[in-house]
Amino acid sequence: MKSTVEPFEHLTGQLKKEHKKSYDAWLQYEPVMDKSLSGQYQQYARSVEAMETSSIIQSAKQELHHAFTSMFENTAGHDDGAERCGIVLTTVESVEGPLKVEAARLSRDGYQIKSVLTSEGPRIYLIGMEEQGVLYAAFHLLRIMQNGSLVDSLNITENPTNQLRMINQWDNMDGSIERGYAGASIFYDKNGFTGDLERIKDYARLLSSVGINGISINNVNVHHVETNLITESLLPKVADVAAVFRAYGIKTYLSVNYASPLQLGGLSTADPLDPGVRAWWKEKTKEIYQYIPDFGGFVVKADSEHRPGPFTYNRTHADGANMLGEALEPFAGLVFWRCFVYNCLQDWRDRSTDRARAAYDHFKPLDGQFHSNVILQIKNGPMDFQVREAVSPLFGAMEHTNQMLELQVTQEYTGQQRHLCYLVPQWKEILDFDTYAKGKGSEVKRVVDGSLYQPAYAGITAVSNIGNDYNWTGHTLAQANLYGYGRLTWNPDLSSEEITAEWIARTFGKDEVVHEQVRSMLLDSWSIYENYTSPLGVGWMVNPNHHYGPNPDGYEYSLWGTYHFADWQGIGVDRTVASGTGYTSQYLKENKEMYESLQTCPDELLLFFHHVPYTHELKSGKTVIQHIYDTHFAGAEQAENLKTMWEMLEGRMDGERYRDVLSRLVEQAEHAKEWRDIINTYFYRKSGIKDQQNRKIY
Amino acid sequence: MKSTVEPFEHLTGQLKKEHKKSYDAWLQYEPVMDKSLSGQYQQYARSVEAMETSSIIQSAKQELHHAFTSMFENTAGHDDGAERCGIVLTTVESVEGPLKVEAARLSRDGYQIKSVLTSEGPRIYLIGMEEQGVLYAAFHLLRIMQNGSLVDSLNITENPTNQLRMINQWDNMDGSIERGYAGASIFYDKNGFTGDLERIKDYARLLSSVGINGISINNVNVHHVETNLITESLLPKVADVAAVFRAYGIKTYLSVNYASPLQLGGLSTADPLDPGVRAWWKEKTKEIYQYIPDFGGFVVKADSEHRPGPFTYNRTHADGANMLGEALEPFAGLVFWRCFVYNCLQDWRDRSTDRARAAYDHFKPLDGQFHSNVILQIKNGPMDFQVREAVSPLFGAMEHTNQMLELQVTQEYTGQQRHLCYLVPQWKEILDFDTYAKGKGSEVKRVVDGSLYQPAYAGITAVSNIGNDYNWTGHTLAQANLYGYGRLTWNPDLSSEEITAEWIARTFGKDEVVHEQVRSMLLDSWSIYENYTSPLGVGWMVNPNHHYGPNPDGYEYSLWGTYHFADWQGIGVDRTVASGTGYTSQYLKENKEMYESLQTCPDELLLFFHHVPYTHELKSGKTVIQHIYDTHFAGAEQAENLKTMWEMLEGRMDGERYRDVLSRLVEQAEHAKEWRDIINTYFYRKSGIKDQQNRKIY
Repeated sequence: MKSTVEPFEHLTGQLKKEHKKSYDAWLQYEPVMDKSLSGQYQQYARSVEAMETSSIIQSAKQELHHAFTSMFENTAGHDDGAERCGIVLTTVESVEGPLKVEAARLSRDGYQIKSVLTSEGPRIYLIGMEEQGVLYAAFHLLRIMQNGSLVDSLNITENPTNQLRMINQWDNMDGSIERGYAGASIFYDKNGFTGDLERIKDYARLLSSVGINGISINNVNVHHVETNLITESLLPKVADVAAVFRAYGIKTYLSVNYASPLQLGGLSTADPLDPGVRAWWKEKTKEIYQYIPDFGGFVVKADSEHRPGPFTYNRTHADGANMLGEALEPFAGLVFWRCFVYNCLQDWRDRSTDRARAAYDHFKPLDGQFHSNVILQIKNGPMDFQVREAVSPLFGAMEHTNQMLELQVTQEYTGQQRHLCYLVPQWKEILDFDTYAKGKGSEVKRVVDGSLYQPAYAGITAVSNIGNDYNWTGHTLAQANLYGYGRLTWNPDLSSEEITAEWIARTFGKDEVVHEQVRSMLLDSWSIYENYTSPLGVGWMVNPNHHYGPNPDGYEYSLWGTYHFADWQGIGVDRTVASGTGYTSQYLKENKEMYESLQTCPDELLLFFHHVPYTHELKSGKTVIQHIYDTHFAGAEQAENLKTMWEMLEGRMDGERYRDVLSRLVEQAEHAKEWRDIINTYFYRKSGIKDQQNRKIY
Repeated sequence: MKSTVEPFEHLTGQLKKEHKKSYDAWLQYEPVMDKSLSGQYQQYARSVEAMETSSIIQSAKQELHHAFTSMFENTAGHDDGAERCGIVLTTVESVEGPLKVEAARLSRDGYQIKSVLTSEGPRIYLIGMEEQGVLYAAFHLLRIMQNGSLVDSLNITENPTNQLRMINQWDNMDGSIERGYAGASIFYDKNGFTGDLERIKDYARLLSSVGINGISINNVNVHHVETNLITESLLPKVADVAAVFRAYGIKTYLSVNYASPLQLGGLSTADPLDPGVRAWWKEKTKEIYQYIPDFGGFVVKADSEHRPGPFTYNRTHADGANMLGEALEPFAGLVFWRCFVYNCLQDWRDRSTDRARAAYDHFKPLDGQFHSNVILQIKNGPMDFQVREAVSPLFGAMEHTNQMLELQVTQEYTGQQRHLCYLVPQWKEILDFDTYAKGKGSEVKRVVDGSLYQPAYAGITAVSNIGNDYNWTGHTLAQANLYGYGRLTWNPDLSSEEITAEWIARTFGKDEVVHEQVRSMLLDSWSIYENYTSPLGVGWMVNPNHHYGPNPDGYEYSLWGTYHFADWQGIGVDRTVASGTGYTSQYLKENKEMYESLQTCPDELLLFFHHVPYTHELKSGKTVIQHIYDTHFAGAEQAENLKTMWEMLEGRMDGERYRDVLSRLVEQAEHAKEWRDIINTYFYRKSGIKDQQNRKIY
């Protein structure tokens, strides 16, 4: 497992130099100006001692060295002997005495940070259960220093709540990124690998610093060229990338084409019960592990949106997934089988078919039939990453099946990183949603952290929002989404406020005005975006294909199962058992009853579950139509205000990040008006009901 | 002017062989089965004598030889001496005696066909005023034979009504065709020329056979690569293509990029009044004529849809066009200056700006300011080739300016050659539209044939519908549009029925059942298409960009100036002087009054000129909403019936053309239902008014 990457200090490219603040994201490591703090930190920084020499431990040392070099005037000491006080990196295995006993409580990726006054002087022990824990501990210590806290009496024990903390890249080998809004792929270009391992290493650093431990490096829609990623022509390159991630405690996975046996193997079938097919996948998997001994496994989008899958052969998803599971089993690899399966050639005239029902209808009957290393990867909602939709009823519904939550960090339907939309508050709502699967307290977060049913595997994954833009995410403030995602996978109980404060401090430093403005901008942004876009959970009022900008009927007469049924009287999808598609019956009693009844259905999901007249009165006391008008006028004003708030920060940060964010906020404010006017006009022209405040509707 | 093309008989490619019937279009030349006719024809066919030897006369001889070889079992004689009876090809210049006197009445492209019994036997004289007339006469004689008419007492004099009878290719050098629906370009591929001069020659034959005498060979949107067509790197290739067309009496033109002096000349401006720019164009034009001594001139789309133009320099369109006119003048070249100029970044909220007004508002004030070799190229309607729109008020409005009508043979908004939509009836309506410019009888056809104002130049042009599909036009029956277009440019007084009958006979032969079915299918198809698509002249209810398929609000909130303003009460664009945009004032009194008044505005343009309630009663006695429902239910049924009618023709023609057309008609019938349901549902959901017949609306 040779590493093909030199330490990044020696390879720093033009981009990193010219756009340092933008590029460094939350790993800024500003010089510590407070003399007393600086003195305390340097006492430790002087010496960094490692008890092991693995690549991950080396990364931890590098990270500390890199940070200290940047934070302190005098170059920090580095690895110069155990006799001086300083920082000790070690796994539990190499620790002795009381520290060892205490550390035994750690889980696999857990760690302790302990300040200890030894006879030779003060030390900080960074103790990992395994080596990746040591790296996480190093990043944690640096976070403490970035926040300007004292470090001489640390006694921290951290275990991640989720076992699998993943990122999915939707990168194609032509360099494009499906639903990417931050430039081209950092992995691929012109149907090959970019070879820019330095950039990939910097991505690994960002991911590892927030606890991510797995990455699938190609789009779930596996096209012709990408199908070859599991062949000898490309596996050496995949192995190079895997080596970079390995050094940061991140396992590499690949999305695979279910029809690979046909395209690559020359077989005449991809039937998962065909012995030839099964043998082919076993051989293929073995081959992959020869290149990458710790390969993570496969992500599979099958029988979905024109992708091939087991349905072609009249087999179930369990048949399809288990075949891959068995091939991966000898190597402890995993299968992430996506549940995003629905009829994408629906007739809009047919009101009885409901796309929202599809995942549950397909997978619930298969509970208990999946192999132990197969994990169902379930999108947070039953539709597709809308700004607001119900939580998928599959969570908690399959007691005997591994489940994983899939979120979308990339802002496909939430402004495409041209609008500010901080998603941590949305994710918190999803994680905190109570499924009642085992009675009250059966939140989604307890399903996917495994504590509810103790499955073999569980966790959270998400579609990444990064590309080769110099600030990684297009919108500089969208870095906060990647940060927050990672932090929540580690600990879903962190509050939005905590995560936000951490991110601001690490990204912009300690300026109180910056903190106050950015905190408020971030925390309000999802609700602002929701205000001026699709109302009350109805979703889908976007332009087809690219999904940017308002188009109230954009998906109304389509094949995609995405309708709102607005007419001159009212709007919404009746998903009740009483008179609609019966989707509500997929929830357990408490939620079913809540959504089924107009009285108890929350306002923000009203149109997701019910078709109501425009004059229907919300719990707020407003009618639906007046709510639409009010939120849209308010939302556009709020978007304008985001710009004004940001303008207060001029001079309080580097010019590049200030200007980059400002230009996006200017576009957002303008585009929010377009949203406001089109949505309001659409509903006014349909309903004929005037705005009570007589504001301008066209 | 060397010809680089060998006679096509020796180069016939695979395509022509394998798809002969589809490829030959209306130049079928079926064997003549009637013995007496065959005998009569062969009496003449035995010998074809030419008095001149130019490339065009050679083409005429080739065409006759090719046709006779195909029509008669015994290979026809060819050029074997004047002493035998037969066909004589000659220009007026070489004719003597009474024939010469008579022929002196011919106009430039005119010809006579005369059967004469000489002492040596019967002869047919094909006498052209110039050599292209001889070629037209040859095609005319063949048409007579294809129709099975007698030829022994012919006495025909034909002069084209229009001087300029052009075709515009919207082909790009990457091989794509803007608004092309029949495969890739026959001219270009991979940013170069295809070099397939044989295919181009066969296109020239088709065009010449219906009287076309000019072609611009690249897209009016002249992109980066195509800008180089007027440079020495590509002019030799252009000259090769021009040679092919020249042999068929067709002049070659190029679309040019107004910013060429910047891109090609390295100048810092393209200001038409700048002496350096003027000198550059003069030199450039001279260079072009060195390669192509009979080069036709330039087609220019300037200051339109993001194309550069004189506006950039605060100059008028007259300034811009005249500069090019002066450069072309020494070579008798022409400038076609397109009037498709409007604000394509309009705010949909602004109801006072009316795109329909734009061409007139821009150009009318410039009457008399254009150079004598500049011709304004005006789209038939003020919007953009909709299935139904008003006729452009610019026709006849500029007494002192050369005007040319631009039609669209390619079916951008009329079903993209996947739907049958025979446009000859539409074009007839346009040509017969009375502008009243010089009182009653001032039809558009009299404006563009020059008889109304006697301008220096006038004529008709159109965007081609061909590509490299083996049947040229995607939909085999769409060949009829190209045919009919050419015939109408020659003689706008031909009736739709005459043209249709000619085309069917030449394309499918004499089968009466085929005649009856195809005639009826073609002649009804425009009205059928209109029935199930946008109602009552409102237009634009299509998907943005590609313009295929229904999308009632597709252009409603766009930047393109294309709105219908449908709300819960009514629909339509108020273009009256009384209460609307005042567009009606651009027409002369008679038309202005007709359109201004709800009482006299024709039903089919009602929503183009007026915003009315859905309950407004049409002249038919129906309400607008009921008309919409009725026409859409009827249109979809009619589309289904087209398929049924075609199915009656199985076995009455070759299988390929039968199946190709059938598969398109199947798609059309299905897609017409989608149109029906989406349009009806859209209006029902908006108006809440039920169909009186209680048919299914979703």
